[in-house]
Amino acid sequence: MSSPFDDRMHEECGVFGIFGHEDASTLTALGLHALQHRGQESSGIVSYDDTKGAGQFFVHRGLGLVDDIFNDANVVARLTGRSAIGHNRYATTGETLLRNVQPLYAELAFGGLTVAHNGNLTNAIKIRNDLTQRGAIFQCTSDTEVIIHLVALSQKKTVLDRLVESLKQVEGAYSLICFAEGRMIGVRDPYGFRPLVLGRLGEAHILASETCALDIIGADFVRDVEPGEMVVISKEGIQSHHPFETAPSRFCIFEYIYFARPDSLIAGKSVYDMRKKIGAVLAQESPCDVDLVVPVPDSGVPAAIGFSQEAGLPFELGIIRNHYVGRTFIEPTQKIRHLGVKRKHNGNRGVVEGKRIVLVDDSIVRGTTSRKIVEMMRQAGAREVHMRISSPPITHGCFYGIDTPSREDLLASKNSIQEIADFIQVDSLAFISNDGLYRAMGEDGRNAELPQYCDACFTGDYPVELVDQIMLKKAC
Amino acid sequence: MSSPFDDRMHEECGVFGIFGHEDASTLTALGLHALQHRGQESSGIVSYDDTKGAGQFFVHRGLGLVDDIFNDANVVARLTGRSAIGHNRYATTGETLLRNVQPLYAELAFGGLTVAHNGNLTNAIKIRNDLTQRGAIFQCTSDTEVIIHLVALSQKKTVLDRLVESLKQVEGAYSLICFAEGRMIGVRDPYGFRPLVLGRLGEAHILASETCALDIIGADFVRDVEPGEMVVISKEGIQSHHPFETAPSRFCIFEYIYFARPDSLIAGKSVYDMRKKIGAVLAQESPCDVDLVVPVPDSGVPAAIGFSQEAGLPFELGIIRNHYVGRTFIEPTQKIRHLGVKRKHNGNRGVVEGKRIVLVDDSIVRGTTSRKIVEMMRQAGAREVHMRISSPPITHGCFYGIDTPSREDLLASKNSIQEIADFIQVDSLAFISNDGLYRAMGEDGRNAELPQYCDACFTGDYPVELVDQIMLKKAC
Amino acid sequence: MSSPFDDRMHEECGVFGIFGHEDASTLTALGLHALQHRGQESSGIVSYDDTKGAGQFFVHRGLGLVDDIFNDANVVARLTGRSAIGHNRYATTGETLLRNVQPLYAELAFGGLTVAHNGNLTNAIKIRNDLTQRGAIFQCTSDTEVIIHLVALSQKKTVLDRLVESLKQVEGAYSLICFAEGRMIGVRDPYGFRPLVLGRLGEAHILASETCALDIIGADFVRDVEPGEMVVISKEGIQSHHPFETAPSRFCIFEYIYFARPDSLIAGKSVYDMRKKIGAVLAQESPCDVDLVVPVPDSGVPAAIGFSQEAGLPFELGIIRNHYVGRTFIEPTQKIRHLGVKRKHNGNRGVVEGKRIVLVDDSIVRGTTSRKIVEMMRQAGAREVHMRISSPPITHGCFYGIDTPSREDLLASKNSIQEIADFIQVDSLAFISNDGLYRAMGEDGRNAELPQYCDACFTGDYPVELVDQIMLKKAC
Amino acid sequence: MSSPFDDRMHEECGVFGIFGHEDASTLTALGLHALQHRGQESSGIVSYDDTKGAGQFFVHRGLGLVDDIFNDANVVARLTGRSAIGHNRYATTGETLLRNVQPLYAELAFGGLTVAHNGNLTNAIKIRNDLTQRGAIFQCTSDTEVIIHLVALSQKKTVLDRLVESLKQVEGAYSLICFAEGRMIGVRDPYGFRPLVLGRLGEAHILASETCALDIIGADFVRDVEPGEMVVISKEGIQSHHPFETAPSRFCIFEYIYFARPDSLIAGKSVYDMRKKIGAVLAQESPCDVDLVVPVPDSGVPAAIGFSQEAGLPFELGIIRNHYVGRTFIEPTQKIRHLGVKRKHNGNRGVVEGKRIVLVDDSIVRGTTSRKIVEMMRQAGAREVHMRISSPPITHGCFYGIDTPSREDLLASKNSIQEIADFIQVDSLAFISNDGLYRAMGEDGRNAELPQYCDACFTGDYPVELVDQIMLKKAC
Repeated sequence: MSSPFDDRMHEECGVFGIFGHEDASTLTALGLHALQHRGQESSGIVSYDDTKGAGQFFVHRGLGLVDDIFNDANVVARLTGRSAIGHNRYATTGETLLRNVQPLYAELAFGGLTVAHNGNLTNAIKIRNDLTQRGAIFQCTSDTEVIIHLVALSQKKTVLDRLVESLKQVEGAYSLICFAEGRMIGVRDPYGFRPLVLGRLGEAHILASETCALDIIGADFVRDVEPGEMVVISKEGIQSHHPFETAPSRFCIFEYIYFARPDSLIAGKSVYDMRKKIGAVLAQESPCDVDLVVPVPDSGVPAAIGFSQEAGLPFELGIIRNHYVGRTFIEPTQKIRHLGVKRKHNGNRGVVEGKRIVLVDDSIVRGTTSRKIVEMMRQAGAREVHMRISSPPITHGCFYGIDTPSREDLLASKNSIQEIADFIQVDSLAFISNDGLYRAMGEDGRNAELPQYCDACFTGDYPVELVDQIMLKKAC
Repeated sequence: MSSPFDDRMHEECGVFGIFGHEDASTLTALGLHALQHRGQESSGIVSYDDTKGAGQFFVHRGLGLVDDIFNDANVVARLTGRSAIGHNRYATTGETLLRNVQPLYAELAFGGLTVAHNGNLTNAIKIRNDLTQRGAIFQCTSDTEVIIHLVALSQKKTVLDRLVESLKQVEGAYSLICFAEGRMIGVRDPYGFRPLVLGRLGEAHILASETCALDIIGADFVRDVEPGEMVVISKEGIQSHHPFETAPSRFCIFEYIYFARPDSLIAGKSVYDMRKKIGAVLAQESPCDVDLVVPVPDSGVPAAIGFSQEAGLPFELGIIRNHYVGRTFIEPTQKIRHLGVKRKHNGNRGVVEGKRIVLVDDSIVRGTTSRKIVEMMRQAGAREVHMRISSPPITHGCFYGIDTPSREDLLASKNSIQEIADFIQVDSLAFISNDGLYRAMGEDGRNAELPQYCDACFTGDYPVELVDQIMLKKAC
Repeated sequence: MSSPFDDRMHEECGVFGIFGHEDASTLTALGLHALQHRGQESSGIVSYDDTKGAGQFFVHRGLGLVDDIFNDANVVARLTGRSAIGHNRYATTGETLLRNVQPLYAELAFGGLTVAHNGNLTNAIKIRNDLTQRGAIFQCTSDTEVIIHLVALSQKKTVLDRLVESLKQVEGAYSLICFAEGRMIGVRDPYGFRPLVLGRLGEAHILASETCALDIIGADFVRDVEPGEMVVISKEGIQSHHPFETAPSRFCIFEYIYFARPDSLIAGKSVYDMRKKIGAVLAQESPCDVDLVVPVPDSGVPAAIGFSQEAGLPFELGIIRNHYVGRTFIEPTQKIRHLGVKRKHNGNRGVVEGKRIVLVDDSIVRGTTSRKIVEMMRQAGAREVHMRISSPPITHGCFYGIDTPSREDLLASKNSIQEIADFIQVDSLAFISNDGLYRAMGEDGRNAELPQYCDACFTGDYPVELVDQIMLKKAC
Repeated sequence: MSSPFDDRMHEECGVFGIFGHEDASTLTALGLHALQHRGQESSGIVSYDDTKGAGQFFVHRGLGLVDDIFNDANVVARLTGRSAIGHNRYATTGETLLRNVQPLYAELAFGGLTVAHNGNLTNAIKIRNDLTQRGAIFQCTSDTEVIIHLVALSQKKTVLDRLVESLKQVEGAYSLICFAEGRMIGVRDPYGFRPLVLGRLGEAHILASETCALDIIGADFVRDVEPGEMVVISKEGIQSHHPFETAPSRFCIFEYIYFARPDSLIAGKSVYDMRKKIGAVLAQESPCDVDLVVPVPDSGVPAAIGFSQEAGLPFELGIIRNHYVGRTFIEPTQKIRHLGVKRKHNGNRGVVEGKRIVLVDDSIVRGTTSRKIVEMMRQAGAREVHMRISSPPITHGCFYGIDTPSREDLLASKNSIQEIADFIQVDSLAFISNDGLYRAMGEDGRNAELPQYCDACFTGDYPVELVDQIMLKKAC
């Protein structure tokens, strides 16, 4: 559940694929709709139709929300065939970058290949430089395109072998859905940074970033694709391969804290439930003597419920969302900006006036919106405003598929907790501890030797070497 | 707070006006934005500029949401002047009906007159027929236009006298904001069916349907305009008149239950607080032996919190909203419609599976969406599904400014509570009692002789005679 | 045939109506398309459908070209019925003025009335002031609306009688198509300033500004509606009335010179043929010792052909039009404007280089574009550039339905022919004489007592008193 | 000058480039505007900006007309830099094909390369197949992309050497404008099928398909780029290279007949003048005893003027164009289609009624529109309708950059002149002879051994072997 407050980190992608259903494209559009929180700035679908003899691919991609790009029944109707894969992306605008919208598609010597990628490769720039020297032409700036080039240049015979050979050369995070030679292929990198699940709808097989994309089309959840696993779906059924060296799983713990939708299950755990448990541990670690618990809508709600239940404090909507925030804005002039214009939210004076409150939110990135929310609460009459955060302080950037500001913009990278509290002007501030977070997840605590999750944004402990980053730094 | 589930009654209008601010139109657009829940299908602003000598009116109206109609800075910039009034409307589409979008504006013998109207007149058709016989030309089908014709035909000297004379001829519900002869005028009908509040921002005076429109621009709430009061705002300040025969106030109780935004104050009472109290009375009247309380998002949330606190049951988000529901739709084909496509909401299996739950919602109109929600909960694994409704059964239509289906479409007009429970397939169903509702509002109960509110939709007790309805029935 | 050079006078309106055809609206859209040159800024169609019992009107109006407003098959499909009237208008933009787009429509006591008007009333402001004093409300700023008010207020029984009574009160130019009480009515004012023809397509009757609108739908031309005639078309057939005092016809001679399409017939005369004859008389009156005749495209072409044939000089395309001039513009920056950017036309160097040429054009209004064309010819290498104009100098404004600049902007109102020649920098300049113009039209010359045409823009001899103009002047 | 009648062959591209002007992109947009007749379905501009250190490319491409794609001042403003190249294309629609819109752009090992191509390669498919086998990835279906791949794979050091090496491998027609390594490069294939001229505007150098693109920006014509010449423009000035084996020039004669704009000069000859001369030879070869000469607008006008002057017959506009034909269409229903709807043209009855006329047009492709025009003339009352065509019969397809229908759709490929005359229902029909065409061009006649122009579409004499066509035929 994403938040309209914009000072968040952003998941960069959501992927969906379906094999063997007569309404493949429509179901893919619906699946992408359910995954909209994983990428709001562009979407695309590539379908494959072999119902009339030789297979043919159909592509439609655009900038904007899924509903806007696929709102025309004719658009979806042109994406014929019984298989389709789709992609949502968080990306910037412009003609040039329309070329970056996924799924990528290329005609190779053996036929068409289409790829939808969630994650980020850590050695893509290095490989790209090598390939360019050898005469390869790149159309887009995305790291995903190196995979396609490696497949094109591979001397292996089958697409599967070419893909395995290619993926052995790349490093970093990838949950991929590909389609080629009549097969839909799902792959997760050996660390399993990003999620990927397998579902079933009648005879059709489905791959998706989260289970909420199965729910929307009434499909059943089968299982998570495992880290390092390659699943190959064809008319003959599903095959599972493990072509890569195994590595200990390092799933992104922030998916549980914020990125995934609360109604999704990841690795068998309810995201909503995990958030409530994190809120409960937070209440144990950093209790607060207040009258009521106020969630920062909407992403802070489950943790706030957990906090309120553990602390025995009333849960109240002290901030009201305006449901009609469009994508266009009435820009107040400089003169009236100081009036405290609140288009998206309003403090609920009837609830907070004269009260001591604790706000529960999922993270602090730059701190600018936290500061505004606190101010809004004081204007609505709150007597004391405390804040509890359901993640540890974010001190490092992510290079595995999450959009984070540069390190100098992360408030916690250079400021103590007290300095942050002063900046956002709260009466008290606490973050969940890293160990507490792991305990909420059902572990005994964080295994410092070999952490059970990727928590690099809190610790700087990067599971995969940042080849491109090191190369770029040297170049400076 | 309105709900994306569409089986609700609809408030038909929101109004806003500001007098004496250099950013009058921008502030009006923001005020209308905060009042978007009172009318989502068209909006308009009329500004008045006398900064360059003779006063001039500027008009912009359109179909769609406020943000879309006023998203262009140039549009707002053309609405110059230090005063402006605006209107949101729930209405249908088409060229013809653009003419119905308010504020209405007309050049009369004494100059321009503009009117924004929340409410519905009950004898407008009768007056209109009379006027047409005398050669009047009507441009739109709205009842508001009769007020303008009556003002135009009045022989009184001042606009104020003409307006008073005109309003004495009309019956029904009206909270009006008018502008003429350099004055902004606010009027509420003698029964005060619909809300209207007075606010202040520095030297500027504001009129608005709800206090949330004051909050968004940082204005202070001054007081409610009283039933039967006419407030006249000019450069000389504010004057209050009471030109109409007094009547006992009959404010629409449904504004508290559903129409108003929870962060608004009406007659000094917090709407959010009233909804929680209604939920608490509901829990007292109709307790429920279940594991958890699930609100129907978003309008059912405050009552559900009240219910959960009173009953001592956990409050949990058993239904998750998709925040990215656009205004355009991927229409599933007939073949896959049965798959149970859920674009807007999803059952939160992690929360409800194996549990006995009580859903709290604000009303049942046709019952179709209630039935779908119950089904969604059962598919998500709920063991028992009970429902509690924070309004009495709706058995009669509203003719005072709320869009209700015809009586035969109101589920409760012809079915017992048990029949409704069977239709929506719940294990148990209860509505708050009419008396309980009044008690939650702080009364000792409903005064049957002279009810403290208008509750005609629950009781058929219409405070103002339905002249047009009777006339239309005779014509059949 | 209109010209993309914009320094022209503009015809203000074109009208079309059809009675008794199952494709009434589509045919009206096509008729308006053929009349596009008479008004390019807005269009509308009102259809009347009595095929399902009681008659009903359907309206669609918009700003832009006919093809853009009626490009959606659904829009036309909603305009059901066997009768329809339409209107093209030259008008400015903005929300307010959408209300001015014709046909106007109003619900009166006797039912709906719709009016499409070509021409301009000369006492509309006076009547409007009177009506406003009596309580009438005006929705638009168009003079046409006074006709509707007069009909609404008339005490006569039938629409026809009310319309006659109303038109007896107005003065000026009007070719009207109205629809009410199941009848389509065509009227021309007693002077017959603007054209109106009657056509037939099978059983259907048609009224239109010009015969080219009959040609486009394959209809037959029947006859011109006569000045002062009212034609009433109903299911019973056509009736002709002459309810007004007769006046000697004063048809606008500029329709022949420029406004009408060259393929139209007016009063039995081919417009193309008249233009050629005017060119021939011009060649007789003001011969020119040059190598070739170059038309100013496209409106100057027929006169240039006539000139070339009479003078025995070759006709050559010395100016080439770019056919792809869109409605949007690449605006050159100030710095490159001096480069002489020519988006719409280009001098044809291969033709004019080293040659003495005479340009033939239809009129000079402000002279600015004439000056640019002359410069373009010199840049393309023309040795001498002469100019011949197929109208007399325009010295007065038109108040009968043509948009002319204010008198001070008319180059010929204050400058001698030599001064004009100096301004546009030609080697010689001549206009056709007023008498020559009448001779080209087949007359013996202009009858100074009672001119055969309205030529007020050349002579200031206004056939109908300018009541509003006189009133406005007094008010200053 | 293109024609709205759509039964024509289509030029596939126009190119424009400017080096060293601060308004490079705006001037390129204007140049493309002047070349709109060479490609109406997509356009693009790539600019190069090295004013802030390292050079950077900016790209904007779209589907539609130049004015629509570049109508937004912001779009052009983002294309910064002192150099830019642009391209117009005749192409089909769809997301996939946006990738085909030129100029193509790629990041290669040495930096960016952008290419705009007019013409068509005859061995592109063969090369593409080879490259794909070696792992190259193609993004679009255009033949131009093989040039970019060959450059990328070349082992030569400089871009110029790489480009020369690449072009030695391709066959067919190409007039190219490229930009790389701070240089603008213009190349024409050894046969010089398509035009390319060099111009100058102050210090800036320009390359363009036709001289009309120089005129629009006020630039001077310098000279034609020669067949087989490579022109390299850098800050050091212009260099000319002739890296290819020389071949006798075979310029496309149809550029003179129809494709080029009449105000352009090609190889020093005025296109307008050539068309008039062709008309004159046509009149000598195939005289016609008629009353008047009627051009088919607009492309037939110059030849008709030449015909009329040679034959001593009056030239008259017997067909009137509607200037307001939008890109959207009011589609008449099946029922009224037979009415002979004429949206774009109308017969000018006043001119042709009762007359014997000869229509002069530039070509007959399928013959369908010729037939409609003849019918329109008869409906307008023409007594006899003859037709003279200013090209020889088109019997073969073009593979050098012109879009022609497949051979079976060319009316003249299977029908005698008499059969064609019968089909289009004229009283007589004649085409100019091939020899006459060469005589009009100033030759003594066609040199059968080594024709002075490419006339393959009339003769099947293809100067460059059709490698891909032969390969595709074998594959069938």
